[in-house]
Amino acid sequence: MLGAGTVGREVVRAFLDRGDALRSADGAILELAGVAVRDVAKSVRGGIPEALLTDAPAHLVADPDVDIVVEVMGGDEPARTLMHGALSTGKSVVTANKHVLAHHGLDLETTARRTGAALRFEAAVGGGTPVLGALALDLAANRIDAVRGIVNGTTNFILTAMSAEGRAYSDVLADAQRAGYAEADPRGDVEGEDAANKLAVLARQAFGQWLDVRTITRAPELVAGGHGPLGITGVTIEDITAAAAQGLAIKLIATASRDGDTVLAGVLPTAVAFDTPLGRTDGVLNRIEVDGEPVGRVAFAGPGAGGPATSSAVLGDLIAIARGVGSTWAGHPSVPRLLRASRPVSSETFEGPSGLRYPVLR
Amino acid sequence: MLGAGTVGREVVRAFLDRGDALRSADGAILELAGVAVRDVAKSVRGGIPEALLTDAPAHLVADPDVDIVVEVMGGDEPARTLMHGALSTGKSVVTANKHVLAHHGLDLETTARRTGAALRFEAAVGGGTPVLGALALDLAANRIDAVRGIVNGTTNFILTAMSAEGRAYSDVLADAQRAGYAEADPRGDVEGEDAANKLAVLARQAFGQWLDVRTITRAPELVAGGHGPLGITGVTIEDITAAAAQGLAIKLIATASRDGDTVLAGVLPTAVAFDTPLGRTDGVLNRIEVDGEPVGRVAFAGPGAGGPATSSAVLGDLIAIARGVGSTWAGHPSVPRLLRASRPVSSETFEGPSGLRYPVLR
Repeated sequence: MLGAGTVGREVVRAFLDRGDALRSADGAILELAGVAVRDVAKSVRGGIPEALLTDAPAHLVADPDVDIVVEVMGGDEPARTLMHGALSTGKSVVTANKHVLAHHGLDLETTARRTGAALRFEAAVGGGTPVLGALALDLAANRIDAVRGIVNGTTNFILTAMSAEGRAYSDVLADAQRAGYAEADPRGDVEGEDAANKLAVLARQAFGQWLDVRTITRAPELVAGGHGPLGITGVTIEDITAAAAQGLAIKLIATASRDGDTVLAGVLPTAVAFDTPLGRTDGVLNRIEVDGEPVGRVAFAGPGAGGPATSSAVLGDLIAIARGVGSTWAGHPSVPRLLRASRPVSSETFEGPSGLRYPVLR
Repeated sequence: MLGAGTVGREVVRAFLDRGDALRSADGAILELAGVAVRDVAKSVRGGIPEALLTDAPAHLVADPDVDIVVEVMGGDEPARTLMHGALSTGKSVVTANKHVLAHHGLDLETTARRTGAALRFEAAVGGGTPVLGALALDLAANRIDAVRGIVNGTTNFILTAMSAEGRAYSDVLADAQRAGYAEADPRGDVEGEDAANKLAVLARQAFGQWLDVRTITRAPELVAGGHGPLGITGVTIEDITAAAAQGLAIKLIATASRDGDTVLAGVLPTAVAFDTPLGRTDGVLNRIEVDGEPVGRVAFAGPGAGGPATSSAVLGDLIAIARGVGSTWAGHPSVPRLLRASRPVSSETFEGPSGLRYPVLR
């Protein structure tokens, strides 16, 4: 294991508390070989046995006794290099790192396919909600036309609180930071980066193509022309109130749909009808909807973040690898190139008093 | 294939229209060997090539060229014997038949485990909504404490229409029969048998035990003591109106939860708070909620019936078998015995004017 933060700690706890329950189909037991962390003493104080700990992640990855690498350290480097190193020597990787997947997914997938290693990442989208594996396996017979959803709990918590309490964005954000629902530097969430990363991963499963995450728009249109602030940073309480008067809730919606050979993808503040399941998805819940042929619309909802929920997906991926299920993309054909996403088009829009123009979803 | 009704027709169509898309991970192509139906001439008129058709299902199952049997004929016999015959000779089976699974699941599973054949049945619960596979795979690391949901579209359609239009049960049922949402003999749906069958299958995945489906209670309690009519057959428009005045919707809820070594399971008309996702699940939609540790609550929603949606699950199971994923229960430990279910206990109840006592779900 690389990392023992919010998610990693829960995974380690599962191994310590009920390791013999983590068996593969053949009765093989997954054994925790070691945990690489930055500060060994701190992890010992946190209850991880010292014998498991190391501050040398590259050595742990290279250990010939290690078959599977669980990356839950987050961030870009050294996570990317460590995952790449593991896959290139045929070791399977389980990761919750949507940033690395969204930016280097094509490279990691290509490496994994070359060496035959499995790369699993169910935890990268929706926390413990099992949507990525389902897209590649249970829904494999479908042509997926669109995916959409609320995939970032922090922004949905902020928008829900603004709406419920009639308070300004900056006030609610400050509260969310104090309560631990938003980070000290909240840009990754509030500017839509986290949601765009997740959308890129979701699109990989839905459409069999990696999107260039930098081409996923996060800037809402302005009524006056041009583009406004990224993500939810330009959403005002006046916009939320005016939308509510029309039966609409402002939500940060990630959406990707097929359009001929291209994919329309965006992470935009959107006016969603109250009387729809997405419009009623409040607080830190996530909800992801999938439109497929022949299945129609299926939806997945659950806690999109948090250590325990996310550890469920990481542990599920470990069990899947032990059972030989392979990568999260399963039988999807190989991917030749990175696809540029185009901006989604909305037939109906709502003009907020702030001057933002919101797509409407009914 | 055994059967070419609502679901079977869609599966056949998928093979005829896009057979080369139905590949396994290794590039092997699933090939449709034949379709056994009762009336060959009728199926020919329905567009299935005569060369594929036979009226001798047992011969088709025994054909040495057949590796996988898809049973979508429904009902008890001959479906049960044909499935058993296939599994006992090591042929894998895909079925949508919740009746046979609920009544003979332990026997079929035991046979499949003995011969190593795969038995997959994602279509048996929730139509195309991928909940059964997720329980055994993506959620495999969890201890599942409870499952609950709306799993029968016909009864939910009837209750929704009664509530929206203020009309009596018998009127709405007659309309539903005319519109094809309810069968001429509606007892399997309205008395809760279909939902109980699905709950038994769901419980197998959630708790690793087959429930004796006959012990799943379908009779609501009476205020005066004793039990009322099965399923929704005793629900009156007066009950629905009185419940609505308290913010409650009457829904047929299937629920199963762990209680020590036993499982509490029932299919009962239940008063569900309007402001919950289950309370707002209307019409023919299905919604299934799973409570697990560590994941928390995850929910699956989608069209629970219909040929196209259900064919998605059947085709997904075929692809899973071609990929070697094995049975729907995947790595679950083997099942030693059939478990008797006990009646669920509700801490809060709603007394309808009809004299029915409804469990309350908030």
